[in-house]
Amino acid sequence: MRAAIEKKIEDASERRRQVLETAARVICEKGYEGASIQDIAEACGLTKAGLYHHIRSKEHLLLEIMNYGMDVFEEQVMSPVLTIADPLERLKTCMEKNILLVTLGWSKEVTIILHEHNTLTGDARTHINARKKRYLRFLETSFAEAIRAGRIRQVNPKVASFSYLGMVLWIYKWFRPDGAVPAQDLVHQMQDLLFSGLEVRVSSKRNRRTAASPRGSSSRQRRSRASA
Amino acid sequence: MRAAIEKKIEDASERRRQVLETAARVICEKGYEGASIQDIAEACGLTKAGLYHHIRSKEHLLLEIMNYGMDVFEEQVMSPVLTIADPLERLKTCMEKNILLVTLGWSKEVTIILHEHNTLTGDARTHINARKKRYLRFLETSFAEAIRAGRIRQVNPKVASFSYLGMVLWIYKWFRPDGAVPAQDLVHQMQDLLFSGLEVRVSSKRNRRTAASPRGSSSRQRRSRASA
Repeated sequence: MRAAIEKKIEDASERRRQVLETAARVICEKGYEGASIQDIAEACGLTKAGLYHHIRSKEHLLLEIMNYGMDVFEEQVMSPVLTIADPLERLKTCMEKNILLVTLGWSKEVTIILHEHNTLTGDARTHINARKKRYLRFLETSFAEAIRAGRIRQVNPKVASFSYLGMVLWIYKWFRPDGAVPAQDLVHQMQDLLFSGLEVRVSSKRNRRTAASPRGSSSRQRRSRASA
Repeated sequence: MRAAIEKKIEDASERRRQVLETAARVICEKGYEGASIQDIAEACGLTKAGLYHHIRSKEHLLLEIMNYGMDVFEEQVMSPVLTIADPLERLKTCMEKNILLVTLGWSKEVTIILHEHNTLTGDARTHINARKKRYLRFLETSFAEAIRAGRIRQVNPKVASFSYLGMVLWIYKWFRPDGAVPAQDLVHQMQDLLFSGLEVRVSSKRNRRTAASPRGSSSRQRRSRASA
């Protein structure tokens, strides 16, 4: 009896997930305004009335798709890196996971979150914006921490964070799985483009003997070693 | 008589520009699918029939707005830098002009070009995509040229170009004129973030004598001074 009830709940939850994924595909193809409830119902193999059994309203459906996408994002990108102690490694690993998320899967929900950034209104918009801002704050904090720790040179953490986001989130506009740049190459190349020029290489006697002194070698670091 | 005709043509062209700009504002606010012809006509102070005197169809209107935005972009960003001989200076100046275009004005048309990237169909889409691709090719070619000239280290020109575009074009999603980062600061900080880590500094005795050589001081410039 209990197993039967659990099976029923599982089926309902699976059916709901299917509805969200199908609706995400339709909205992704036609845009939120372009996709009618009729289009979404048809794609789900449901009547309009049948679809309304699963959703409250079209706007609430969009909110649910975005929440679903943010759940996946937080689970696959942000949560796993929160515990990385070194802020620079944290940022690099986070970039890797975010690029892989955007390139390898879940791209429908991510596309909607990115593309329909002005579509929600009222509380729904406030809610999703707060979830997005958590990521921005996390990046800003990590950049600021990396500067304080002498791991990267002095930059504006806000501009660095938005540059990171622009590089990574713009990918949905151009990346093709069968294109010239495989996802894993893209990870290494974008990590190199953004972080190699920022990273402070520890300035030791061995480094000073080489031709060029490391860019941005922080005077703060030197002072702190001198006073140690 | 001739002056009167010219005046009439000028007025018509000015009226047309106003219609395009108003339509751009409405589409920017509501999205292409969300903005009805009725909305656009009302905002222009016209009846629907009056609006159709100026436009062929809603999709053709979108094409015209995008063409207008691309005209402004090419005139203000790409054309002025084509003649800069040094590829690194060309890329940096181009980034500056593009950031200023996105932040200081024309943001409605730019937003539509960026946001409605999948809305056009058929020939109109092909036409606008070809204009956008010209910019991508220009960037790729400039990065490749900068590598060959030894001005920047070896990177993938395609990934570098899309990183550049992501940083610059994402700005429309977050920048506020009254926000924490003034447009001109944003220019310097993004130029620094992308190019300082790529630039190959000529390791000369003079450079080693000064504490920090000014960033972006071009070896070509120094060579030309030496040969003068």
